[in-house]
Amino acid sequence: MRYGRTYNFSAGPAMMPEEVLEEIAAEVLNYRGSGMSVMEMSHRSQVFQQILDEAEADLRKLMGIPENYKVLFVQGGGTLQFAMVPMNLMRNGLACYLETGAWSKKALTEARKYGEVVVPASSADRNFSYIPDCSHLEIPEKADYVYLCENETIHGTSWHTLPETGTVPLVSDQSSMFLSRPCDVRRYGLIWAGVQKNVGPAGMAIVIIREDLLREDLPAFVPTYLSYKTHADSASLYNTPNCWSVYCCGKVFKYLLANGGLEAQSKRNEEKAALLYAFLDQSSFFNGTAAKEHRSLMNVPFVTPSREQDAAVVAASKAAGFDNLKGHKSVGGLRASIFNAMPKAGVTALVDFLRTYEKEHG
Amino acid sequence: MRYGRTYNFSAGPAMMPEEVLEEIAAEVLNYRGSGMSVMEMSHRSQVFQQILDEAEADLRKLMGIPENYKVLFVQGGGTLQFAMVPMNLMRNGLACYLETGAWSKKALTEARKYGEVVVPASSADRNFSYIPDCSHLEIPEKADYVYLCENETIHGTSWHTLPETGTVPLVSDQSSMFLSRPCDVRRYGLIWAGVQKNVGPAGMAIVIIREDLLREDLPAFVPTYLSYKTHADSASLYNTPNCWSVYCCGKVFKYLLANGGLEAQSKRNEEKAALLYAFLDQSSFFNGTAAKEHRSLMNVPFVTPSREQDAAVVAASKAAGFDNLKGHKSVGGLRASIFNAMPKAGVTALVDFLRTYEKEHG
Repeated sequence: MRYGRTYNFSAGPAMMPEEVLEEIAAEVLNYRGSGMSVMEMSHRSQVFQQILDEAEADLRKLMGIPENYKVLFVQGGGTLQFAMVPMNLMRNGLACYLETGAWSKKALTEARKYGEVVVPASSADRNFSYIPDCSHLEIPEKADYVYLCENETIHGTSWHTLPETGTVPLVSDQSSMFLSRPCDVRRYGLIWAGVQKNVGPAGMAIVIIREDLLREDLPAFVPTYLSYKTHADSASLYNTPNCWSVYCCGKVFKYLLANGGLEAQSKRNEEKAALLYAFLDQSSFFNGTAAKEHRSLMNVPFVTPSREQDAAVVAASKAAGFDNLKGHKSVGGLRASIFNAMPKAGVTALVDFLRTYEKEHG
Repeated sequence: MRYGRTYNFSAGPAMMPEEVLEEIAAEVLNYRGSGMSVMEMSHRSQVFQQILDEAEADLRKLMGIPENYKVLFVQGGGTLQFAMVPMNLMRNGLACYLETGAWSKKALTEARKYGEVVVPASSADRNFSYIPDCSHLEIPEKADYVYLCENETIHGTSWHTLPETGTVPLVSDQSSMFLSRPCDVRRYGLIWAGVQKNVGPAGMAIVIIREDLLREDLPAFVPTYLSYKTHADSASLYNTPNCWSVYCCGKVFKYLLANGGLEAQSKRNEEKAALLYAFLDQSSFFNGTAAKEHRSLMNVPFVTPSREQDAAVVAASKAAGFDNLKGHKSVGGLRASIFNAMPKAGVTALVDFLRTYEKEHG
């Protein structure tokens, strides 16, 4: 890595492409002859409007977002989306949540403030180490939506096949797998993603919402900022957005487009994950914690035979120049988050390190 | 100005100190040997925790914030604060709002969703060009708080003397005058400020709240993110904050401390404003729109004898290299926002330009 940069396996905020950071650094004091930093620009100026418009257009191109979907840039991250989804989408006061880990659980807990939540499928029985079978999902007819977290960052699982929800809109938290693979947006009523894992700097969520789900007649207690329609009607400029994050995310969209789009990125992600999983599968010291058929390509939790050895590996990895490999407390062990911007060389280096460690201490 | 930078009179986002931007540019790819950008850092990492802790400590030092006040870094900007204030502070369901312009009006409109709002003073009768006399303010005994906008960005007025509210907490929106002068925090129950005018990049508000106003027993519909207690209990790390804005604002706090603190900044602001107002007061072509005794030191709206001439000056100023001088549509004319980071040379240059313009076209 150049600039003395390190392989950072953080679960988010996480690595960004080096080329993108170089461009940003060069533009901090004067964005393309505008005489100012993007941080200093009026959000009502032409120069910022162009940044915003290009970011949206590039994201639409990347994901193939149909015209009847709005793209919104909203502050507040996932925690605010957990409230905005039920506040905006519960018309009948009933929603289905598929419980597959910490993040879907947080979402359903918040949703219970706004109506009835049923949980037709859960993997809580085995510490969320798998995705439950949803081939015969029972969805009440009057359910307003079915919600899932498409990649559970903490437990390292991912939905590789989406459940059939009929006419009931599917809502997906794509935060930790956003733009990691091609996405058929038509399958969803709403997709949202915190940008700080696979795209850019924290402080913003991107919401992709089918127009018919935008409502005017929200309950009186819903703050203006928490209505999706507020943001849709003003094209994300109702108030000052997180301009810096819009700008940086826009650069990442352009970077992905220039590097083969989501098909090519997906292949790179599969290659990287295959390297790490192949090592774990043959190791007798390190073991992946997620069920093989539901493994995430982004977050790879694994354990050694004991907590003491987990901690020793984390310490050794840090000393060897790898960062943020400590696992989340609810799973333990280690976790390697290998988002879009983690270079293949980073995964190779990690596997080499783990292999050597096993030989010496395993 | 160096780097081909321009004098940017935007009402926000607005100029930042050049020295701060230089530091930021140098750290984009690798923050102080951490091997990563601040944009890539886990918000749970030691290196980011230090950035957050220093930002809070430096702000406390700058403003002399007493120990019984919490400092919170919250996403969502002013629009979210308009809802959070009544959601969190209305216990008796009654609040007083002092109506002095567009921003206090937006705040009181949002507050009406959550309880009764009385308006004991307003300057709506003369298009908010002054601050109403509040020397004998009638505040109902059971009022939960008195709310004001301490500097109205659009109308260019400022509270130079705070109203007496007895035991009823005073809540102030300081967005467009935050850190522009010394502040006796003890006078307030709550201060909030969007950072994008006088501090750093958009996408964050800073909330300074007296501890006894933090509540656990909020109405059931209040989203977790919108409870001040959520942020206070987790020291602004309940979820991933706008890490980049925290980092940049922290640098501005250090810059202010190194340059004499708020006393010195206040003197610089008074000098800059005096230059511009002295010119306007003697001009027979340009006229300030705000009442002299309530003028803002930050936002200076002024008009020519006609709309056509207003537009001609704006166009000429742009051609001369000044940016964002067009007035807000509700006041018309021009507006020069001269926040903390606007150099004195920028105001001098503007006055020279306006003087010449008047000679040639006035």
